[in-house]
Amino acid sequence: MGKKVAVILAGCGVYDGSEVHEASAVLVHLSRAGAQAELYAPNIEQMHVVDHVTGQPTSETRNVLVESGRIARGNVKDLALLRVSDLDALIVPGGFGVAKNLCSWAVKGKDCTVNQAVEDTVRAFHAAKKPIGLCCISPVLAAKILPGCEVTVGQDTECAEWPFAQTAQGIKSMGCKHVNKHVHEAHVDAKNKLVTTSAFMCNAPFHKVFDGVGAMVHELLKLA
Amino acid sequence: MGKKVAVILAGCGVYDGSEVHEASAVLVHLSRAGAQAELYAPNIEQMHVVDHVTGQPTSETRNVLVESGRIARGNVKDLALLRVSDLDALIVPGGFGVAKNLCSWAVKGKDCTVNQAVEDTVRAFHAAKKPIGLCCISPVLAAKILPGCEVTVGQDTECAEWPFAQTAQGIKSMGCKHVNKHVHEAHVDAKNKLVTTSAFMCNAPFHKVFDGVGAMVHELLKLA
Repeated sequence: MGKKVAVILAGCGVYDGSEVHEASAVLVHLSRAGAQAELYAPNIEQMHVVDHVTGQPTSETRNVLVESGRIARGNVKDLALLRVSDLDALIVPGGFGVAKNLCSWAVKGKDCTVNQAVEDTVRAFHAAKKPIGLCCISPVLAAKILPGCEVTVGQDTECAEWPFAQTAQGIKSMGCKHVNKHVHEAHVDAKNKLVTTSAFMCNAPFHKVFDGVGAMVHELLKLA
Repeated sequence: MGKKVAVILAGCGVYDGSEVHEASAVLVHLSRAGAQAELYAPNIEQMHVVDHVTGQPTSETRNVLVESGRIARGNVKDLALLRVSDLDALIVPGGFGVAKNLCSWAVKGKDCTVNQAVEDTVRAFHAAKKPIGLCCISPVLAAKILPGCEVTVGQDTECAEWPFAQTAQGIKSMGCKHVNKHVHEAHVDAKNKLVTTSAFMCNAPFHKVFDGVGAMVHELLKLA
């Protein structure tokens, strides 16, 4: 039997949920490696709903677990049901939903709080020395929960290719080490068993993000 | 410059929109081949909204173009704006949204009607001898619009691996030829420049669907 890997989703869509292509890449790479993905999401309301064409919030309300079902093809469970002892590793794909629904980074930056079930889950995998893979904005979860850890969100100098590079400064301000990496690379913090990659923090073509997520999954499974 | 390929989306989520992973695979494979994807969707209400965890319809209303923006990361245009003369090929990923929003196959089967803008677009690419790639349930669009064409939706005998095999009978009943193919294969109708693959018509792991979509994109670009 392959490794069992929990994947925590945060909704469906880059601006208010999980980034669809990062989540899909995670599932393709896990599947190819013979690992078994188990999808989870918190059963909570989204911070808000964004019209992805206009980029503006709407008056709708949507539930994170229900919308995550769109990526999961229905096969997603309430995060409250996750049992770390049944699993070998954890992955949290990126997307603004991570910074809006799983924690309050989008609103409060380094002073954010993390959803209790998400924080408990990350702490439990870390305590069990089971590896954690994070991409795009998700490394802020580790930076907040595990001060002193090493992560990458890509590059720390803003330019057209790296429009969100200030995130690296935020990570440093939380007492963590930021390691500059290219989009196709993953960084491994061996001590904390953390594997991170920038994904769509980089303004890169889809296949380069796909390959970066592949590097993350590959390194994660080596540690599992 | 690489080829410009129109991709028509039908919403976001397998049960009422475009299948997220098929659409993502299309974009990854086009990107890797150096082709440029241009995403479109009709600016219409969805047939209905399905809670993807329970599988049941809800009382919500959602717009196909707006929800397609979740897959498109905001970069999607009204299908009414598509100009075939500016484009080299067309792809329609699958998902029930194709059978619910782009045509009425989900409700009426072989007696379905096709959204006028979708029909006009398919006819225009076909008339211009520009290739059309269709996966999962999307080949029913070609079967309805281009009688006599050859497509695959996988296998024509129902089993656990092929739960939707009766679709092949529906295609035959519309006067088209169905060609049995495995999930990693694409079928090419050279006369009509149609490239089809079964994708999630097969109960297959994510990476096999990804590879089948890759075969479709590869054959499509050879014809473009």
